[in-house]
Amino acid sequence: MSSIFTKIIAGEIPSYKVYEDKHTYAFLDIHPIQKGHTLVIPKVEVDHLLDVPEPYYSACFTTAKIVGNILQQSLNPQRIGMKVIGFDVPHAHIHMVPMYNQADMYTQPADTVDHEALAAVHAEILAHINTLDK
Amino acid sequence: MSSIFTKIIAGEIPSYKVYEDKHTYAFLDIHPIQKGHTLVIPKVEVDHLLDVPEPYYSACFTTAKIVGNILQQSLNPQRIGMKVIGFDVPHAHIHMVPMYNQADMYTQPADTVDHEALAAVHAEILAHINTLDK
Repeated sequence: MSSIFTKIIAGEIPSYKVYEDKHTYAFLDIHPIQKGHTLVIPKVEVDHLLDVPEPYYSACFTTAKIVGNILQQSLNPQRIGMKVIGFDVPHAHIHMVPMYNQADMYTQPADTVDHEALAAVHAEILAHINTLDK
Repeated sequence: MSSIFTKIIAGEIPSYKVYEDKHTYAFLDIHPIQKGHTLVIPKVEVDHLLDVPEPYYSACFTTAKIVGNILQQSLNPQRIGMKVIGFDVPHAHIHMVPMYNQADMYTQPADTVDHEALAAVHAEILAHINTLDK
């Protein structure tokens, strides 16, 4: 059975996409611990990030840098934190978290999904990307 | 003034080294949140990981994979977590954390440095690396 992330990549489940290329996909976490919290995933279904084969492994961190810069420039946090834990969805993913202080990485996300807030931050990020494209 | 990490790379401050190559250095965090908690740093003094230039940026994640595999094989945790926060030392660093459950990433480290425990886990890791070399 495909992971929920594989279904997101395939477009079978909608997502707030931030970036996509041949080997990776990035989209807003629907249970963000901070505004703009984004997940970067390889387009290969492997549980443990350390087991993700090349060129997907390296591509994830190239995308992490691209997405990190997009988040930094569009949302202007103090810095971008990253974490990989992976006890939930068995498809490797890197959390990219806009941070204003050290405690921001340890916030507990809401149980409910706030689509209005997600759509608003997504629009803010996309507006920045559109500016880059011009 | 050099960061404490630059001094560690230069050997001016001793460290429990796990791995080193041309662009990166990895050593045990002396305030581990889990046994075997290791830091991977670039051999260039840049505060924010996203600002670390190539080839150092990509080299950090190649080293993260090497170190992650060393920790996985020598200490046999359930998986290896990673995080980048960076509000403390202004020299980019990736935390590599052997994990047994999700809460392991959120442990608070001890204030004191337990050199006996660090030396013991360092010996355990080095014994594994020496096995690989043979």
